[in-house]
Amino acid sequence: MTGSAPEPDSLLGAIRGRDRKALARAITLVESTRAKDRERAEALLTRLLPFTGHALRIGISGAPGAGKSTFIEAFGEHVAGHGKRITVLAVDPSSRRSGGSILGDKTRMAALARNPAAFIRPTAAGTTAGGVARRTRETMLLAEAGGFDIVVVETVGVGQAETTVAEMVDLFLLLVSPGSGDDLQGIKRGAMELADLVVITKADGDLAQAAIRSLADYRAALSLMRPKHPGIAVEIRKTSAMTGEGIAEVWTAVQEIWVCLKGKGVLARLRREQARAWFWSEVRAVLADMLEADGAVGAQAAKLEAAVMAGKALPDVSARSLIRLFRGVDAKGAPP
Amino acid sequence: MTGSAPEPDSLLGAIRGRDRKALARAITLVESTRAKDRERAEALLTRLLPFTGHALRIGISGAPGAGKSTFIEAFGEHVAGHGKRITVLAVDPSSRRSGGSILGDKTRMAALARNPAAFIRPTAAGTTAGGVARRTRETMLLAEAGGFDIVVVETVGVGQAETTVAEMVDLFLLLVSPGSGDDLQGIKRGAMELADLVVITKADGDLAQAAIRSLADYRAALSLMRPKHPGIAVEIRKTSAMTGEGIAEVWTAVQEIWVCLKGKGVLARLRREQARAWFWSEVRAVLADMLEADGAVGAQAAKLEAAVMAGKALPDVSARSLIRLFRGVDAKGAPP
Repeated sequence: MTGSAPEPDSLLGAIRGRDRKALARAITLVESTRAKDRERAEALLTRLLPFTGHALRIGISGAPGAGKSTFIEAFGEHVAGHGKRITVLAVDPSSRRSGGSILGDKTRMAALARNPAAFIRPTAAGTTAGGVARRTRETMLLAEAGGFDIVVVETVGVGQAETTVAEMVDLFLLLVSPGSGDDLQGIKRGAMELADLVVITKADGDLAQAAIRSLADYRAALSLMRPKHPGIAVEIRKTSAMTGEGIAEVWTAVQEIWVCLKGKGVLARLRREQARAWFWSEVRAVLADMLEADGAVGAQAAKLEAAVMAGKALPDVSARSLIRLFRGVDAKGAPP
Repeated sequence: MTGSAPEPDSLLGAIRGRDRKALARAITLVESTRAKDRERAEALLTRLLPFTGHALRIGISGAPGAGKSTFIEAFGEHVAGHGKRITVLAVDPSSRRSGGSILGDKTRMAALARNPAAFIRPTAAGTTAGGVARRTRETMLLAEAGGFDIVVVETVGVGQAETTVAEMVDLFLLLVSPGSGDDLQGIKRGAMELADLVVITKADGDLAQAAIRSLADYRAALSLMRPKHPGIAVEIRKTSAMTGEGIAEVWTAVQEIWVCLKGKGVLARLRREQARAWFWSEVRAVLADMLEADGAVGAQAAKLEAAVMAGKALPDVSARSLIRLFRGVDAKGAPP
């Protein structure tokens, strides 16, 4: 396995044989926007699909400074100590360049990166219509085929990134640092609704008391909301990556929630729905790619969108005309 | 204006002349799924587009029993008393039959329905891919061309309906009835995040004390969240449709929020973004309609979706193959 352009079958074999370099190469292939690479990526993904789906998929988010990388390192070391192999994929919505993600910088989790049971990888936000993480789902499948038991997708609480990540995982952890009432106002509206588990970080030293208050505050806030899944309560834990407090408890809670989701058939349903949504979002993304590739149609799409946004054209009429043009049924404006 | 199939121009004239029967007929036309009717509806909508956009668009939601129709009646009478013409469109996600909506039953708001300044209309949820309210946006435009100053879109807090409605209005009112801590748990996660104004209903008689407590509880919950629009606080008011308490205050708050949104350019941006999202959602809906109309392609779409949901096919590969088939570029499986 040293060739720079291995055929899908040999690459698949290497990934399944837990060859980390092969996994890294496959992720680069999946992230490539070159048509030739995409074809090879799709061939590879199609072949490895039967070996995916077994991993526990966890989304982790929190505002900048919430202590995400410190927590993930402590959490990763803990689960690795319990014999689990863990992949961490960092999605940075602010990054548009492949590999240039600050959030995903490997050096942020230096200790965990050296652990043979862990694999850390920034994923490029990409510039395509699928936006953040169009390829992160596929990278998740690669990691699963590589025998990882846990796949963590990490993001910052900015824009749509949190929701996008929540829609590709089994359960979602919202990380918050302890703070006064004023600081709590910084929690993004909607972030709480995505969470299966709220994790208060930095519950040590000067912040130990604040963490206790935060625990009570968030518990009160959560009590005002319906649980995310009927009959499965949203949990809350306080942790310290420094003292190790709460890390084991988070792992236990995560496992309990997962078992609960599985037992009630919620997980199977959730994943089916995620796959359905992913399919239709890909239909739209592929459509957008093709519109972009087709100069004339793409220009018309941009013109129609601008007219609709300016209130000068109707969305329905414009959509119909775009689709007709796309199908080649209607070549309005072109000479016969 | 008595013909049963008036041409767009005369129908437009009648709508602009505030002919209520013409408005009702135009709404029926817009809701029709017959191809011929759709053509006429689009011609009408295109012509009346320049006369739309001036109205204050309000979304109102709340759990069943929150007192939506009672509140809307009191609110409608109040604004009508201040010289405003108001349309109420009720979107019932549970209804699939045109006109068969329970939520939109005209008799629910009997007094307001008799007010010459008010127009009440249930809107069919529809069975098309756009789902709830694909045509509600267009009905809103009809009402605006008909000279209404306020358009209320009402829905119940079920499924995606609330979010869909929030995405077509300028501001969103969440109605909640007073209750103990236990009752507050019934608030749907995510509903709070949509609200520009929380309205506590039934603040009278036996519930007067509970309403005061609820006011404090919701205020505390809201203080934990970022405002929906930076610099514009989410307001909360308690009301009684029986005593009239708070109704004028809600109207004042709604106007203040709207002025604030306009002043900061937020409203213009919001509506542009809503139009963009509507356009692309129509592209997808039209695509889905065409897939349904084209037996072979539609069957293939259903097959691909099922395979993706069962984890047997990749969303990206499946989306690409569907789009190719749709464009007629690729006729896989068909004899040459």
